[in-house]
Amino acid sequence: MSASDITMMRIMARWQGGAAERLKEAALTLFQSHGYDGTTVAEIAAAAGVTERTFFRHFADKREVLFFDQNAFEGVFLAALPASGAPMELVTAVLAGAASLFPDERRPWSRARQAVIVGNVALQERELLKMSLLAVALTRALTERGIDPVDAALAAEAGVAVFRTAFAAWIADGEERPFPEIQTEILNRLRALL
Amino acid sequence: MSASDITMMRIMARWQGGAAERLKEAALTLFQSHGYDGTTVAEIAAAAGVTERTFFRHFADKREVLFFDQNAFEGVFLAALPASGAPMELVTAVLAGAASLFPDERRPWSRARQAVIVGNVALQERELLKMSLLAVALTRALTERGIDPVDAALAAEAGVAVFRTAFAAWIADGEERPFPEIQTEILNRLRALL
Repeated sequence: MSASDITMMRIMARWQGGAAERLKEAALTLFQSHGYDGTTVAEIAAAAGVTERTFFRHFADKREVLFFDQNAFEGVFLAALPASGAPMELVTAVLAGAASLFPDERRPWSRARQAVIVGNVALQERELLKMSLLAVALTRALTERGIDPVDAALAAEAGVAVFRTAFAAWIADGEERPFPEIQTEILNRLRALL
Repeated sequence: MSASDITMMRIMARWQGGAAERLKEAALTLFQSHGYDGTTVAEIAAAAGVTERTFFRHFADKREVLFFDQNAFEGVFLAALPASGAPMELVTAVLAGAASLFPDERRPWSRARQAVIVGNVALQERELLKMSLLAVALTRALTERGIDPVDAALAAEAGVAVFRTAFAAWIADGEERPFPEIQTEILNRLRALL
């Protein structure tokens, strides 16, 4: 591969990244104004200034515009997993890493997205499944770190429960604290409950 | 409604319950011998000695033969929920009640079912979603008992994590301990982890 090929691939990758972001913004705006069911892929593509074909290069369907790519999503969590440690030490490190997904400037988008999701059972189910698949991936990664499989499953499920609950609190009306602070408090609440 | 009408309805209800059980047994046998994808509803109905129409009176599709009806499933958990108590006291009572779903004589069926599910991504996802929906229902029920919503979500997720992990251990090769004993041990392991 020549240097100019690589340059061209970089330019295309940057452009495609831009298209994905524009498609997400356009989709969310349309979902809010016309409803999720009342919005078509053709309308989203047109609003983002791209073709339907470009839409489908980035997303499998209309629903996926609202969700992180599962591999990329899990990758952010797993990238923060230390090489060794006690189960909940490892999970605590993973949660700290995952908090990077949710800087304050993302909160308005996440709130708008949530408003779309609560109105649609299929979207709610997709969200639940994404979380469950994350717990499965985290369980596997902890087991690969030598953690006993039962402890790995329990620690992973507890971690995902803390993450989900923190996310719900972070996007609640009036909440202004940053994600990491909320998540740490919620992990402590889980410890206190048990 | 006459006494004979009521008698007839009771007989039909009993017969229909029998049909659902026969359909489940027939489906699992066929899934094991011909594979899940290689088995049709027509074949399941024929093996159970009923019509396809009868099949669809009991199950929405081929997949649902392997799962509890969601409402009935959640109902078993929620029926064991005390009127008041601390979050994890309530959840512990719920788990004890749910253990009634898995008497020892059910274990062979549950193991055979699991062997079918691990071979099919869509079935695995259905199983994960059923568990997530259970956690949602339990969160709501705890909130209705006056538990703070964050504590309710955390306690419900922890309870479902214990239940799922206990179920996986109960059907593991060579495991002979009864479900309630395993579940209690796993709840204690979660406490120890946190």
